[in-house]
This record gives sequence, C-alpha cells and structure tokens, in this order.
Amino acid sequence: MQFRLDEAIEVLERTPRTLAQWLIGLSDGWLQGNEGEGTWNAAEVIGHLIEGERTNWMPRLAFMLREGESKPFPPFDRFAHLSAKPEATIEQKLREFQDMRALNIRKLKELVGAEADLEQTGLHPAFGPVKARELLSAWVVHDLTHMAQIVRVMAERYKSDVGPWIQYLGVLKK
Amino acid sequence: MQFRLDEAIEVLERTPRTLAQWLIGLSDGWLQGNEGEGTWNAAEVIGHLIEGERTNWMPRLAFMLREGESKPFPPFDRFAHLSAKPEATIEQKLREFQDMRALNIRKLKELVGAEADLEQTGLHPAFGPVKARELLSAWVVHDLTHMAQIVRVMAERYKSDVGPWIQYLGVLKK
Repeated sequence: MQFRLDEAIEVLERTPRTLAQWLIGLSDGWLQGNEGEGTWNAAEVIGHLIEGERTNWMPRLAFMLREGESKPFPPFDRFAHLSAKPEATIEQKLREFQDMRALNIRKLKELVGAEADLEQTGLHPAFGPVKARELLSAWVVHDLTHMAQIVRVMAERYKSDVGPWIQYLGVLKK
Repeated sequence: MQFRLDEAIEVLERTPRTLAQWLIGLSDGWLQGNEGEGTWNAAEVIGHLIEGERTNWMPRLAFMLREGESKPFPPFDRFAHLSAKPEATIEQKLREFQDMRALNIRKLKELVGAEADLEQTGLHPAFGPVKARELLSAWVVHDLTHMAQIVRVMAERYKSDVGPWIQYLGVLKK
C-alpha cells in the first residue's frame, strides 16, 4: 500500500490549478478537439470533474463513513455533465472546479480524523465492498486519468503534423 | 495540417508553468517514482526537457534554416541529462526549464518571420529530409508526451491502492 492521506491531498489540491495554468487562454483549436464521436473535449472533461466533486467522491465517502455496508451508495452518472448547460467558458468551469475541490478537501480533513478511519468499508453499487482508502486513491488516479486524456487529445491534433517524429512520440501511440 | 505557429507557441509557453504548479511541493514519494529500471522519475523528465531546450529543438531549427539540406543536424543525445549533476532540486530544475523555454520562444519569434519559412527543409540524421514545421510540431507533442509520462508514473504508484476502481481508470492500463 502506497496510499497516505496527506500525499493524496497534495495531488488533489494541485489538479485544478495545474489545469488552469495549462488550459486558460488556449485557442479553441486545442480546447475543442476530441478523439472522435462519443469522446470528450477539454471543456467536457472539466465538466465531468465538476460532476465528480458534486456527486461522486466526497458524497460517497461521507455516505460510506455514515452507513458502512448497510446500503450501497448511489450510482454516479459519468455522463451527467453532457446534459449540463454548455454556456460556461472553460475559465468559469475551471473556477467552479477549483472552488468545489477546495471545499471538498476541507470536508475531507474534517471527516477523516485519523488514517485508521480509512479502513472503513462501504458498498459500491457495482463492485460490492470497498474501503474508504480505495475510494480516495481512485479519486487521485481519476484526476490523473483525465489529465492524461487532455494531453492525449491535444497531442492527437498534431499527429500528422509531426511527420517522421511520430516514432519517438509515445503519446501518439494509443 | 493543423499546425499554426501562434497556437504551437501557446502550448510551448504553458508547459513550464503547468509543470511548476503541478510538481513543486509534491512529496518525494510522487517525485521519485518511475516505471522500473531504465525509466525516469519526474526530476529526470525535467532534466531531459532542459536538455532539449539546450541542444535539440531551437538549435536544430536554427541549423535547418541556416543550412537547409546541405548537412544533417547533429544527433540529440536523449540520455545526456542522466549524466548531469543531480544536486538540483526539482524547483531549481523547473526554473531553469522555464527560463530556457522563454528564451527559446523569443528566439523562435525572431527567427521565423512568416509561416512560409516553416516549409524550409533540413536533414535529420536518422529521418532524412524534414520540414521546419514538422520539427516545431514535434517539439509541442514532445512536451505533451512527457506530461503524459509524469501522469502515468504518478498514477502507477496507486495501482494496487485503487482496488476494484482499476477497471474505470484508463491511465493504469498501459
């Protein structure tokens, strides 16, 4: 086991500001690209991260610590953000993500008094019994998965532009 | 062709500050991890990016615009940074990367008066004839490749910690 609460928080608190540095001010060409039908552009990824803050990670952790395995936590709709109003700019979305993440980290610190609490189990609707520390680890890696996705989508845009360099550029080999 | 000089610069100028937001202050557990023998940790990746600023991208572009296809540009040692002195902190390395990148972007803007200059060809020591715009596209995607690498290395650390969530976390499926 590598998980430590303080180190997990280090990553969780950096994700919104890293994405802000990276994405704010980029041209639409970078922000509107996706990987084909049914895949997401950068703005949609941020929408999904916001949805995760709202209904997935911390709400599930709180539910788990309160209910244990007595009932499964509600499923998370991984596509909910696609029906949200799309008017917000990426800057507004990133600010919303940053605010919600900061609030959730404060809640996390209040809720978890000691690492021992993280051995608590709950009932995932699809997986069955899961531990609090597995959920928190997954939250961290979920951030990283979506950073990888944005990197991949942006790189894809220049796939033919790089010419023969493609053979040295691992991110273009999916 | 998707390449446009101004859009390429948008990404190139963001990479150092994005990496700074993301990596400065992280625990050694995050910064020291790699993907096994012969692979790089985050600090080594930054060392490689610095080496690219020093001897690869802009020097090659300048060489190409000066020499055309008359002689191949010198090969780039992709492992040079591994023999560099390792005393610098990640913060110092990131500052060095940021300074060198800013300087190189200034040089790029001086050197390339019009997009038309980017059709100029040169001789890559392994690939043969390449265009200036292919080199610049590769520079952008090279940044993205190494961001993907750092994301992947960090995610790997929690591979067993995430428990059953692994099936939803694409970055862990290499």
